[in-house]
Amino acid sequence: MEKLKVIKIGGHVIDDDDQLRSFLNAFSALPGAKILVHGGGKTASQMLEKLGVKPKMAGGRRITDAETLSVVQMVYAGLINKNITALLQAAGCPAAGLTGADADTIRAVKRPVRDIDYGFAGDITKVNTENIDILLKNGFIPVFCALTHDGSGQILNTNADTIAAELASALSERYETELVFCFEKKGVLLDVNDDESVIPHITEESCIKLKSEKKLKDGLLPKIDNAFQALQRGVQQVLITHISALSDSDDTGIQSGTRITIK
Amino acid sequence: MEKLKVIKIGGHVIDDDDQLRSFLNAFSALPGAKILVHGGGKTASQMLEKLGVKPKMAGGRRITDAETLSVVQMVYAGLINKNITALLQAAGCPAAGLTGADADTIRAVKRPVRDIDYGFAGDITKVNTENIDILLKNGFIPVFCALTHDGSGQILNTNADTIAAELASALSERYETELVFCFEKKGVLLDVNDDESVIPHITEESCIKLKSEKKLKDGLLPKIDNAFQALQRGVQQVLITHISALSDSDDTGIQSGTRITIK
Repeated sequence: MEKLKVIKIGGHVIDDDDQLRSFLNAFSALPGAKILVHGGGKTASQMLEKLGVKPKMAGGRRITDAETLSVVQMVYAGLINKNITALLQAAGCPAAGLTGADADTIRAVKRPVRDIDYGFAGDITKVNTENIDILLKNGFIPVFCALTHDGSGQILNTNADTIAAELASALSERYETELVFCFEKKGVLLDVNDDESVIPHITEESCIKLKSEKKLKDGLLPKIDNAFQALQRGVQQVLITHISALSDSDDTGIQSGTRITIK
Repeated sequence: MEKLKVIKIGGHVIDDDDQLRSFLNAFSALPGAKILVHGGGKTASQMLEKLGVKPKMAGGRRITDAETLSVVQMVYAGLINKNITALLQAAGCPAAGLTGADADTIRAVKRPVRDIDYGFAGDITKVNTENIDILLKNGFIPVFCALTHDGSGQILNTNADTIAAELASALSERYETELVFCFEKKGVLLDVNDDESVIPHITEESCIKLKSEKKLKDGLLPKIDNAFQALQRGVQQVLITHISALSDSDDTGIQSGTRITIK
């Protein structure tokens, strides 16, 4: 089976032009099939504020009302996705910027209203692996922003980590897939105050132990739970690593960060 | 040679939700290979105003400074292009929303500064017919907004009529291409005050005559000149017609409007 890397970059790197360019150059240089998924950075919040759209929150989570969706859609799909795509093209990477609506790649359902109405937030229902495979097989590099669609004409806001995990899981039926979360730390840290205390390898067994010892901090728990879900659905390996780690990769893969596998 | 329609829709239809949906349904129903190119409508101007970006003009033309480009990019590629793509998907049309940066489809050069610096305005230098052909051959329907890129990481603002004409011209080496401009009139009118006075057919010869009789109004002259340029570069036929004309098309093509051919 051919190998595929699904790489997700988060907020901070997107807001820093130099870091972003350096990351995108490293991404371009990676051999083999690959997909990039990017978050929104601070620009969406700044644009919402500029346009006087007040953040609507419920239970600590942002609610995507129609007005918020328009702004998020403009920033994610228009500004950030196209800037990244143009920069990748400049680096020689045949990128194609996508939302889930483009080529019907990712469908979602508007999150059902129970206690809270999250508005235009989408829970993924289907990854169109056939269409994504056509793009990959023809040499295009898909670059996804955090937007999906419902198949009835509505764009939906969907968490970028979730998009990356769902893409990697679904595509593991066609590729030997690795899911890589790049962020501002060197990996999962044993001591949040010590940047060098990276846990090199987490398995299901060691994860239970780390959790019982309360050594996994809240911020990373959803990422780690996402990781194990993806592994259970066929992803070969999940890596949580620093955005600069891509530059240090060699033929055997990315060399630093926290490797997560089932066993 | 396979047939291809390159269809451009302008401002008014994009601002009217019902008209847009009806147009997109008709577009979806059109048989054969097709490409949609859309303008920006009023949303870009409204967003520029909301964000307090003052229009910069020179010689009656808008200058695209960095701030203006950001807003235009958000509205064209983020808001309008993705709404259209999601609506086309809902209508069963396998749309893929694109800027010229995506899959390196359209390259441009920042307009050289002579008397006026137009800012981030792009003059098209290359249409990547190979990559567009890959998308078409795999059943995807490209939907272009009015943005190109320079190959060095910069998105550029490019007139949607020009993009449509350049796409049709370049792709005429691979397809028997028809270029269709859809707008709010039924075609080129002999009398601007009489909506029924559509000139059914214009040739190079009749165009010279119409011009000498001052029967072609200023607003349409650039479209008509664009049309003849496209015809000289291999486009089979150019049609200037009403946005509703697509609904009336049959196997032999779209039945109303002004047909422009060399002879």
